[in-house]
This record gives sequence, C-alpha cells and structure tokens, in this order.
Amino acid sequence: MKASARPIGVFDSGVGGLTVARELLRQLPGEKLIYLGDTARTPYGNKSPQTLIRFALETGTFLARRGVKMLVVACNSSSAYSLGALRERLNIPVVGVIEAGARAAVAGRRGRPIGVIGTRATVRSGAYARAIHALDPRARVVAQACPLFVPLVEEGWTGHALAAQVAQEYLRPLKREKVESVVLGCTHYPLLKTVLAKVLGRDIALVDSAKEVAREVKTLLKASGLASPLKTVPFKQHLFFVTDPPEQFAGQVKRFLGRQPDIRPVRLAELPAK
Amino acid sequence: MKASARPIGVFDSGVGGLTVARELLRQLPGEKLIYLGDTARTPYGNKSPQTLIRFALETGTFLARRGVKMLVVACNSSSAYSLGALRERLNIPVVGVIEAGARAAVAGRRGRPIGVIGTRATVRSGAYARAIHALDPRARVVAQACPLFVPLVEEGWTGHALAAQVAQEYLRPLKREKVESVVLGCTHYPLLKTVLAKVLGRDIALVDSAKEVAREVKTLLKASGLASPLKTVPFKQHLFFVTDPPEQFAGQVKRFLGRQPDIRPVRLAELPAK
Repeated sequence: MKASARPIGVFDSGVGGLTVARELLRQLPGEKLIYLGDTARTPYGNKSPQTLIRFALETGTFLARRGVKMLVVACNSSSAYSLGALRERLNIPVVGVIEAGARAAVAGRRGRPIGVIGTRATVRSGAYARAIHALDPRARVVAQACPLFVPLVEEGWTGHALAAQVAQEYLRPLKREKVESVVLGCTHYPLLKTVLAKVLGRDIALVDSAKEVAREVKTLLKASGLASPLKTVPFKQHLFFVTDPPEQFAGQVKRFLGRQPDIRPVRLAELPAK
Repeated sequence: MKASARPIGVFDSGVGGLTVARELLRQLPGEKLIYLGDTARTPYGNKSPQTLIRFALETGTFLARRGVKMLVVACNSSSAYSLGALRERLNIPVVGVIEAGARAAVAGRRGRPIGVIGTRATVRSGAYARAIHALDPRARVVAQACPLFVPLVEEGWTGHALAAQVAQEYLRPLKREKVESVVLGCTHYPLLKTVLAKVLGRDIALVDSAKEVAREVKTLLKASGLASPLKTVPFKQHLFFVTDPPEQFAGQVKRFLGRQPDIRPVRLAELPAK
C-alpha cells in the first residue's frame, strides 16, 4: 500500500483521546484512523514514568504493526514521558499533545501567567512548562494536578454541582496567581469546559490542545508527502480497538464522537521484562 | 519448607487490600504475608469480568509460585468474579472478601434491608446479594455503586467537605430504603468510615469485611493444619510487591499500616491470549 494511503494511529489510556480523534476526523476527513484505547489498564494519570513508557511502547508497537503512517499520542500523561522512547523504537513520525497545547497557549499570550491543569503524572513531569519555555522563556507557568476530574467525567457528573465545587478547589491557586489562560492538559477535560469556564470567569481563556494537534498532524502529513489522496473516508473504515472488552467503552464513545463505531477487543503483546 | 511455615498471599489492585492485610497482621501475628498490589493496572473497579479474571490469574500465579499456602483476594471486584477461576487453577485454598462481608451483615440482621456499596464491577456482579441470600433468602439487599469513593480516598480527601457531599449523593437511595446496615464492599471504603457514619446516622451500622475475612482465614488455617507454629513474625519478614514502581505506593502504605515496609517492584508473567 502506498504510504499516503495508510491510516493514522491514535492511542490513549481510554476514552479521553477521542476528543483528539474527533478533531482529526473533522480537520482531516480524507484520513483513515486506527484508535487504540488501553482500557484494561486505564487510567494512566497516576502511574510512574517507567510504566507509562512501557505501556506506550506496547500500544505504539501494536499500531505500527497495523501499518500506521504516523502515531498520535492522544494522552497527555503518555506524551509527557514516552515520545522519546517511541521515536527511538518506531520508524514513523510520532506526535504528542503537549507541544501543541503549549503552542496554543503561547500564541494567545497577553503577559499574565499561563495555567496548566492535568493528571498527577503530567504535572509532575513538568513537560508543559518545558514546552512553553522553549517557545517563550519569560512565560510564567502555574501547574495544578486535578486527579478527581477524570473520575468525575467518567461518572458523567460533568454538569453536577459537585463538579463545580471540585473545580473551585483545584483552580483556586490558578485564580490567585491571576493566570490569563488555562491549558486543558488532559484529554478528558474538554468535557468539563462549561463548568471550568464558569469557575474561572470570562477573563481566563481555556486552551484545548485537540484542535492544535489536528492542525499539527495536517501540516506534518503535507510536509512529508504522507497526506491521504482521498477526499473523505466512510466512518465504518475507521478502526477502534480496546484492551478491556468493549461494552463499557462503547457506551461512552457516542458522547465523544456522536456516532457509534464497531469496537474490537485486542490483547497487546507485552514487552519482555528487562 | 513445612506447609504451615509458608506465607499467606494477599492481593489487591493497589493499596485498598492493605486494610485486609492490617487485620491479618493483627489477628494472625504468627503468619508471614506476601502482599501484591497490581498498581500498574489499578483500579479494577470499572473493568470487565474477563479482564478481572485474567488479572487475578496472573497475580494469583505469581503468589503461588512464591509458595504461599493460601490466597486471600483482598479486592471486592476481583472476589466478585475470579474465585472460581483461581480455585480451578491453583492448588491452595482461596479466600475472597465478599462471603465474609455477607456473613457479618447477616449476623447482625434486625429485619430491615441490607445496604451494599462498592465499585461498579462489584455491584454489577450481584455477588453480595447472592452471598447474602445464600445465608438468608428473605433478606432484602439494596446495592449502590460509588465510583468516586476510590479516587476521593486516593486523593486523600477523606475528611474534606466534598467527601460528605459525594456520600450524601450516593447514599440517598440506601437511606430512602431505610437500610439497617451498609456493607463496605470495597477495601478502600473503611478509610471513609467517619464521613459515611456521619451521613448515614447512628442507626445504620457499617460492616467492614476485613475483620471477618481475617477470622475466616484463621479458622481455615486451623482446620486444614496450616496454621503457623510461630508466635510472632518480625515485620521485616512480610514481603510487599507492586507492579508499578513503588514510590507512590510507599507514600500511601503508612496511612494503612502505620509502618513502612520495604516494597519491591515486579513484572507479572502475562497469561497467553486465548
């Protein structure tokens, strides 16, 4: 198969990366996607760097074997630690979500500090601060881990009064520091946009990296001659895999994509222990 | 080594099972423990039966290879689905936490319905209702999944006002049904006892299965001639293993055990895919 006709691989710990998949489908209607959600081992956000790297290599290898032309790491925790290892192991371009989010935050810069919220693993990595400082060394970054946001989203309590109270608690330090924007450093968080906007107030912009990631993928595909020659791809041709049996994932996909794809269960080959 | 001198294996998805380990240490001071927390794949409570069974066989096999004389499944979600498969595979007695919890609830029975709270997987399994009905077919059981309790405990917000509000929300149906007791059907929940007792009020008893499980283990060891001949075991001889590197687990162990053991990282052998 011609390289440009091959699909794009997208992986995440579970459903969160579907916010990135949705944006890819919207901006790149001629590209085929293979999505892999590692639902048997989800969530990634509290796990150690070593484990995150191992999981990324296992999921990345699965997608590479299925012939993807590019790999999108749609999980922030994974992006924070695994891009180097993936690029070393795989023979295809690898795109994470953090640089894109940093770029979007710096592009809108007005001079006040930039807020970043994410999982414990993402915040601990300092990856957003590094990516932001690479673009603007003088930018001040205030990062806050929000471990309860993912379970709140997965419980479906995005509109519940408690979501606002949890947000109030977590966002207090960012408000105190008068941040100008808050980067949604976890792919689940766009589902909390309404409540986050309400708690933060109008003056603080929310930065969702999904749109920026899709733009980056588009640019990269074009630059490397890998853009699909097709105009559109029938939805049925996108493939969705999960490591836990698909029933539960299936119930959540519609909330993210607005459509119901076929979803196949898969077992990943484990990397040998060192 | 004489069978009675061999250790007891305890496994859980992570730290929750330490509430059971603590009770075993208290009631059986002459027994050596090997604890395994599957922290790389935690939590178990939202995962499917097939995945829970596979994980249980992998962790159980690891402990069996280390020569344990008995296996305690200290995770309710795992106990709900995996005891049969474990008993079939392993050549040692396997004890779960659900029957013990059911027994304690039925023993205190006053005639009103019995409440059960747990993870989504545990509640969906109906295992508590089955275990309770096996002891008292007329008992009415009201079960409620509380998926946010585990993340709240892991965030350390057990004393936070939000914990009370989340509890209020989840426990409403149990209060409406005028339950006489609530079985803590997840090993994390004993850490929420104070707030649960406050929300439920004095008239509703909290049933913590850890004590009952330890009693059951004691009885079984004696009956099968497997009780340790020792009076006490130095704390250092208990072994603790985790599948994610131990730093984060180490930080939580002290909250559960009041002491800080050595903790070793381990890779589990994966079962071959069918």
